[in-house]
Amino acid sequence: MKVLITGGVRSGKSSFAEKLATSFGEKVVYVATATAGDEEMRERIAKHQSRRPPNWTTVEEPVNLRDVLLTARGDAVLVDCLTLWVTNLLLKEEDVVGKAYEVVEIFPKITVPLIFVTNEVGSGIVPDNPLARKFRDVAGLVNQVFAKYCDEVYLTVAGIPVKIKGVS
Amino acid sequence: MKVLITGGVRSGKSSFAEKLATSFGEKVVYVATATAGDEEMRERIAKHQSRRPPNWTTVEEPVNLRDVLLTARGDAVLVDCLTLWVTNLLLKEEDVVGKAYEVVEIFPKITVPLIFVTNEVGSGIVPDNPLARKFRDVAGLVNQVFAKYCDEVYLTVAGIPVKIKGVS
Amino acid sequence: MKVLITGGVRSGKSSFAEKLATSFGEKVVYVATATAGDEEMRERIAKHQSRRPPNWTTVEEPVNLRDVLLTARGDAVLVDCLTLWVTNLLLKEEDVVGKAYEVVEIFPKITVPLIFVTNEVGSGIVPDNPLARKFRDVAGLVNQVFAKYCDEVYLTVAGIPVKIKGVS
Repeated sequence: MKVLITGGVRSGKSSFAEKLATSFGEKVVYVATATAGDEEMRERIAKHQSRRPPNWTTVEEPVNLRDVLLTARGDAVLVDCLTLWVTNLLLKEEDVVGKAYEVVEIFPKITVPLIFVTNEVGSGIVPDNPLARKFRDVAGLVNQVFAKYCDEVYLTVAGIPVKIKGVS
Repeated sequence: MKVLITGGVRSGKSSFAEKLATSFGEKVVYVATATAGDEEMRERIAKHQSRRPPNWTTVEEPVNLRDVLLTARGDAVLVDCLTLWVTNLLLKEEDVVGKAYEVVEIFPKITVPLIFVTNEVGSGIVPDNPLARKFRDVAGLVNQVFAKYCDEVYLTVAGIPVKIKGVS
Repeated sequence: MKVLITGGVRSGKSSFAEKLATSFGEKVVYVATATAGDEEMRERIAKHQSRRPPNWTTVEEPVNLRDVLLTARGDAVLVDCLTLWVTNLLLKEEDVVGKAYEVVEIFPKITVPLIFVTNEVGSGIVPDNPLARKFRDVAGLVNQVFAKYCDEVYLTVAGIPVKIKGVS
């Protein structure tokens, strides 16, 4: 079972992902793609961590998602979030969509349930900044790649998970 | 019956909310959280008003939603919108999410149908401005609080209300 | 059959629209509202074109959609996209919503299937720039006009078309 959860900021993506992960068992591997680069991000990470059950394992991996997923052991693996992973790869000038395909192509080898959190970033005004436009484009394409290879996809709106792919 | 209607700008939220309010009866109390602070907002408010039936009662209340809802009498109460209420509270440096809980906790005492209009503001690019980021976060959390305690939630897209919570 | 497909940037709108157009037959008229005004747009257009079957006919029409639709012959007509059409009309200071009504009022005369692609642009933070705010408003209103007169409306999210209007 591979699940993608997408939605706007503060739409309840992470809470729903954590609830879903817990439904698979107690031993959840939480893969954090955030790096505590600045004060605001540090606070956000700390808030997220304080909400997670103490028996979860946290792996911090900003870039190499593929290897982390291949080696993770537990009842479920939760990756939060793909959008920061995209940001980290863009900063390293990687071929991000290519990297996304390298991750989804290992899906058949993975038997532990995988849950990915990502963001909707393309429903506002076109940004002035060309880098922001590129980021929107790449983030959107990566969401499409993961959605295509996941069994279930949810869009969260105001805390409500709306299933948009998978048997209901 | 408590209903939350969320959606992007010009997605048909207010029109749908007004139609829904009318379905409960003629005597609708319209709670406007906007203040006519500038020319653009004044025009927007005037346009909204001209669309409302003349026998509706309008209450202007930018901040104290709880008391307005406790005392309102009519066939339905329509609050338009929560996002401006969030803005007004942030400007006064209030604990906005706390205030949201103070509103939803009176829901069981209220028998008149309540309809809340709010905005999706978190599906664009991360804003540069820290205040805008804070606003997005708080607006999203407030939407979650109201959605949790409302019986029905709709997402409007291109004028179409999509029910995302409640029996269909 | 008239279909509107809306969604954020890189949410899979155009791919889905092209698949849908192909389902009606081989002779598709592709109406491009983009003008190759700058390098970035030129690249985007070239990428889009390379994806289209070679037997499709391309019509470039940034403004006069009504006449193009009245005269187009084929198995289906695909307009990509309304948001650029709105931009082009705003630059000419036209009454854009009025122009939208002039297009939908010819729908009953048109028997060839019409597919329109458009964008969700109103789910981010309120832009500082008054022109950007006006654009959001007009783009949203135009989406409402087309959605009202189309038989089917889809919202694409992460490459997944979610039907929000029409028999499912």
